[in-house]
Amino acid sequence: MKAYLDCVPCFLRQALEASRMATKDENVQRKVIDSVMGRLPMLSFNVSPPEIAQVVHGLVKEITGESDPYREIKKKHNQTLLKLYSPLKEIVSNSQDRLLTATKMAIAGNVIDLGVQNEVKDLENTIYRLLSSDLVIDNHTDFKEALTNSHLIIYLGDNAGEIVLDKILIEELKSMMDIEIVFIVRGEPIINDATMEDAKLVGMSDLTRVISNGSDAPATILSQCSSEVLELFSKADMIISKGQGNYESLSEEDRVFFLLKAKCPVVARELGVNVGDTILKGNSFRED
Amino acid sequence: MKAYLDCVPCFLRQALEASRMATKDENVQRKVIDSVMGRLPMLSFNVSPPEIAQVVHGLVKEITGESDPYREIKKKHNQTLLKLYSPLKEIVSNSQDRLLTATKMAIAGNVIDLGVQNEVKDLENTIYRLLSSDLVIDNHTDFKEALTNSHLIIYLGDNAGEIVLDKILIEELKSMMDIEIVFIVRGEPIINDATMEDAKLVGMSDLTRVISNGSDAPATILSQCSSEVLELFSKADMIISKGQGNYESLSEEDRVFFLLKAKCPVVARELGVNVGDTILKGNSFRED
Repeated sequence: MKAYLDCVPCFLRQALEASRMATKDENVQRKVIDSVMGRLPMLSFNVSPPEIAQVVHGLVKEITGESDPYREIKKKHNQTLLKLYSPLKEIVSNSQDRLLTATKMAIAGNVIDLGVQNEVKDLENTIYRLLSSDLVIDNHTDFKEALTNSHLIIYLGDNAGEIVLDKILIEELKSMMDIEIVFIVRGEPIINDATMEDAKLVGMSDLTRVISNGSDAPATILSQCSSEVLELFSKADMIISKGQGNYESLSEEDRVFFLLKAKCPVVARELGVNVGDTILKGNSFRED
Repeated sequence: MKAYLDCVPCFLRQALEASRMATKDENVQRKVIDSVMGRLPMLSFNVSPPEIAQVVHGLVKEITGESDPYREIKKKHNQTLLKLYSPLKEIVSNSQDRLLTATKMAIAGNVIDLGVQNEVKDLENTIYRLLSSDLVIDNHTDFKEALTNSHLIIYLGDNAGEIVLDKILIEELKSMMDIEIVFIVRGEPIINDATMEDAKLVGMSDLTRVISNGSDAPATILSQCSSEVLELFSKADMIISKGQGNYESLSEEDRVFFLLKAKCPVVARELGVNVGDTILKGNSFRED
């Protein structure tokens, strides 16, 4: 999907948030904001929003000198979710439809906003609430069918913390069928997106093959991905895509199932849903 | 109060909203947004937010060629509120504390967001809900006392639509005591703020003296006000100030009672309240 002018205030909001994570110096923060305002008018909006966000966050890193402003937040998100790993695994084990439960849990991971919900208890309640409510776009029957016909799956991760719930879903998939799953992380730190460091920390790399996409965009921008990722992308029977960024960059691709929460009005409008809605949406599959 | 970097995304959001009111041409909309981003880095943030908003909306008017983007919206707001005039007057008449009810009603006027609430019925319910709930900052005892000691009051209006509820409060004040009230409107159209045209349309100018402040800022920026307004401002025993813009520009002034809803995190933080809270706050009074 393409960027809209509505994305401009949001890019500025993101730049300010990231600057504040990187430095307490308000003069530097203002320098970042001014630089972003200097750069945005030069950019084409005929690209997906995360391609522009990549430029914005690049300026934050360059001007603040902090290559990973969300480092501490990501660490905290991982720790918080790891504390919930055992009780959540138990919920999956005790559920009637283990795959659906693990899938909804992975979507719940995208719902979590630890900025707002600092307490583990709050977070647990959010996940439980989502598990007992319906997905607003719910292609889980197609999702299950596609899984049974797949030998190689690419799983595109989104955020730190959330990656723990991705792990629970991948464990479930692996226990159900003989399947190769490659988990893709961002190539460099970008916002609170999961990188190789997070994959190692939560044990994802012990569970399945993890590779970097070679890009520091908060999305999967194919033109920026390594040849290894591109080859896997073309060979994969199915792609599981987590979060808004991956949706924004891959909404036109086929063989993809998007698992996300619609977090902004622009993405919600593209999907025909309301902000806050939870989505499991399958794009068309290539013919055999 | 001074502007914060948090205001930048909001200025862009406002510029986009106003551009869309003014034109359907997306190229012109982008030109506005780019021009705002070109201008903001040149401005000092050592001024109140509405001083910057004035520049932003000036660019919208200049580039779109539309001097009053909110013309239709304001007309609709006035019409909607005028339909509620009689039932709301009846509520004041039937209430135990008529002044408090009329005051809370005037604050309710600032709560209304007709962008969200298009139906008269919804709006009525919002007003009723506010009347039956407590103000979060509630200086109404001081407010009443100041009123009884006042001979000349300046009443700084805020938005179209809302001005109908200001009229109800002023009617109440005039029926209670022998008092001179001067209602101040913006000098030129700015966002959905009330101008002389709105004051005439809702009958405010038949009720009390109405004068323009001589400025097109969405606030009362004293350095921009006419000498007539400045003289009144210094002579007045008390100033009733409606809405965020007037608060932002006059928060340091004395003899002022601020009636508003805290609509953004920056103003809410200044006031020590939450976004959405309703406020009747009196600043210190000059000694006799």
